[in-house]
Amino acid sequence: MANERVYNFSAGPSMLPLEILERAGSEITNYQGSGMSVMEMSHRSKVFLKIFEDTRAKLKKLLNVPDEYEILFLQGGASTQFSMVPLNLIGKTGKADYAITGNFANTACKEAKKYGQISVAASSADRNHTYIPTQDQLKLDSEASYFYYCANNTIYGTEWQYVPETNGVPIVCDMSSNILSRPIDVSKYGIIFAGAQKNMAPAGLTVVIIRKDLAGNELPITPLMMNYQTMIEKESMFNTPPCWCIYMLGLNLDHLESLGGVEGMEKIKGNKAAMLYDCIDNSRLFTCAAEKGSRSDMNVAFRSASEELDAKFVAEATAAGFTNLKGHRLVGGMRASIYNAMPVEGIEKLVDFIQTFDKNN
Amino acid sequence: MANERVYNFSAGPSMLPLEILERAGSEITNYQGSGMSVMEMSHRSKVFLKIFEDTRAKLKKLLNVPDEYEILFLQGGASTQFSMVPLNLIGKTGKADYAITGNFANTACKEAKKYGQISVAASSADRNHTYIPTQDQLKLDSEASYFYYCANNTIYGTEWQYVPETNGVPIVCDMSSNILSRPIDVSKYGIIFAGAQKNMAPAGLTVVIIRKDLAGNELPITPLMMNYQTMIEKESMFNTPPCWCIYMLGLNLDHLESLGGVEGMEKIKGNKAAMLYDCIDNSRLFTCAAEKGSRSDMNVAFRSASEELDAKFVAEATAAGFTNLKGHRLVGGMRASIYNAMPVEGIEKLVDFIQTFDKNN
Repeated sequence: MANERVYNFSAGPSMLPLEILERAGSEITNYQGSGMSVMEMSHRSKVFLKIFEDTRAKLKKLLNVPDEYEILFLQGGASTQFSMVPLNLIGKTGKADYAITGNFANTACKEAKKYGQISVAASSADRNHTYIPTQDQLKLDSEASYFYYCANNTIYGTEWQYVPETNGVPIVCDMSSNILSRPIDVSKYGIIFAGAQKNMAPAGLTVVIIRKDLAGNELPITPLMMNYQTMIEKESMFNTPPCWCIYMLGLNLDHLESLGGVEGMEKIKGNKAAMLYDCIDNSRLFTCAAEKGSRSDMNVAFRSASEELDAKFVAEATAAGFTNLKGHRLVGGMRASIYNAMPVEGIEKLVDFIQTFDKNN
Repeated sequence: MANERVYNFSAGPSMLPLEILERAGSEITNYQGSGMSVMEMSHRSKVFLKIFEDTRAKLKKLLNVPDEYEILFLQGGASTQFSMVPLNLIGKTGKADYAITGNFANTACKEAKKYGQISVAASSADRNHTYIPTQDQLKLDSEASYFYYCANNTIYGTEWQYVPETNGVPIVCDMSSNILSRPIDVSKYGIIFAGAQKNMAPAGLTVVIIRKDLAGNELPITPLMMNYQTMIEKESMFNTPPCWCIYMLGLNLDHLESLGGVEGMEKIKGNKAAMLYDCIDNSRLFTCAAEKGSRSDMNVAFRSASEELDAKFVAEATAAGFTNLKGHRLVGGMRASIYNAMPVEGIEKLVDFIQTFDKNN
């Protein structure tokens, strides 16, 4: 396989479309006659500001972001947002509600407890995070400053299929692992954030979409770079942003638009996930832990009845050019992360591989 | 100039060696037979961990970092360190000393006041930051938790030529704009930090070198991602690090080693700066604001007697392929940032250009 690209099922960082990598490579020493790489550009130069503003405009258009929202290009990943959200929002009432449907929501909840009174609105820990709570199961506090959930749980392979109704309490959502995979109604959210390294761009960029009126109420202890209001006022450039990742995001958004935008991607990813789940459901050896109705279209977690067989599967799959299929250490088994950039033929070939393995073992 | 690379005198992000951009371009879709781009690799994969560990080892070797220090690869730039430093260190005595020799030290000082009692050990504001205070001018508090300074002031074109003696108080130094340009005795410092986008790598990576015993005393309000102890324990991977920037840093460190390491670079950058300062000192039209003995070898700030002439110089220089020479808005005039990646011929040609302009105007 030394000269061929592999099908990379990593949970993140993960695949990027080959054509955008080739495009980036073609202009890596001289971007469009500027005489320099995007990696060398002053973030305040006209040539880079055009990249920045075009990328922001493309994202605004693709996600249909209303004007009362700001799109921020920050650093530090979702884990930085785990602190930034309470530091900026919890001052309103001192309280917030969290739904715990996986590892990252749990970490976010723990972090928020440093800054206010946190209630667990729902937890799926009782069945090892194999399901998403229903609206009826959410215990919501009308005095919460915000309600927090993680839209897709990469480790457990579950995904929220609805947007909770919170009766006016702003919703904060970690969409790191399913943003841009389907249309969303941004107006239902207070803050959407996402680390870029799964469905958008290389690691090092965090996209935040924030309803502007929610900013400006940060706790006095809020670090300079964690103040949403400052970042809104400085248009993400209080200091140097992660320029290369923003550029790569722009290339990826062009690619997404050519596939029909998020509406087009919803069909593509739905088909990909259905092919893989059908294959697993129809196999002798493998089962999915995630309950039907809660299954993720981005991360397909599955396993056989034995750890030995799982290890054999992963080893043979790797040798055949399907990499990073080992499940997270918290759950074991296998996980196929099939974000936007995973081509359909990657799924078709993995399905063939699973069927053959299923027959032979 | 559409097909040629320019001499880019940007204060940061800034030039990178052409050969490392070409190398990165050559393996952008398939890194060394891995079948994927570095931008697509799981940060926990063997192939990326080797890049990560090799890069850290190269930096440790080049800067001769003692074993009791940890090298961290973080995000958020120097401005994030402005908060992270006091949040982690000030708890010891509640007090810290800051030397204010420019804009960034001043911002760092303001930020620290959120978390403790801050004294200004020295300020060069009385002569518009055109000089660096002497050791005698530093008013040091022996009970300070740390002493903070910025080694090189990009806006004003000044650079500390000595390491302050603090009698055991840990020194924290922002080396964003001169790291890797000369040998340093790391053992004299408690923390050295640097945004990568001037002398190391593309924007999006912050290097922190910390004496490990200083970590672990953070204030309880410290955000998860701003805890040095956590980052030491997780070897910079509490979450996904900025993988591409780390890879580019590794390529750049190989390049630096081929030039004789920081000892080699000290000679090269000294020669480059001397050529440019001599040219300006010998011109009719131009003067340097920074006082002799305090001048920066990284950022050469100069000006003519009139704003009109400055503007004419910048316009003609840009047309001739010398970009980003306009000075910072706080001081006006011109600024030539001549970091490690600026080739000697860039300086030679700029000197020619200045001399011709000087004759003709």
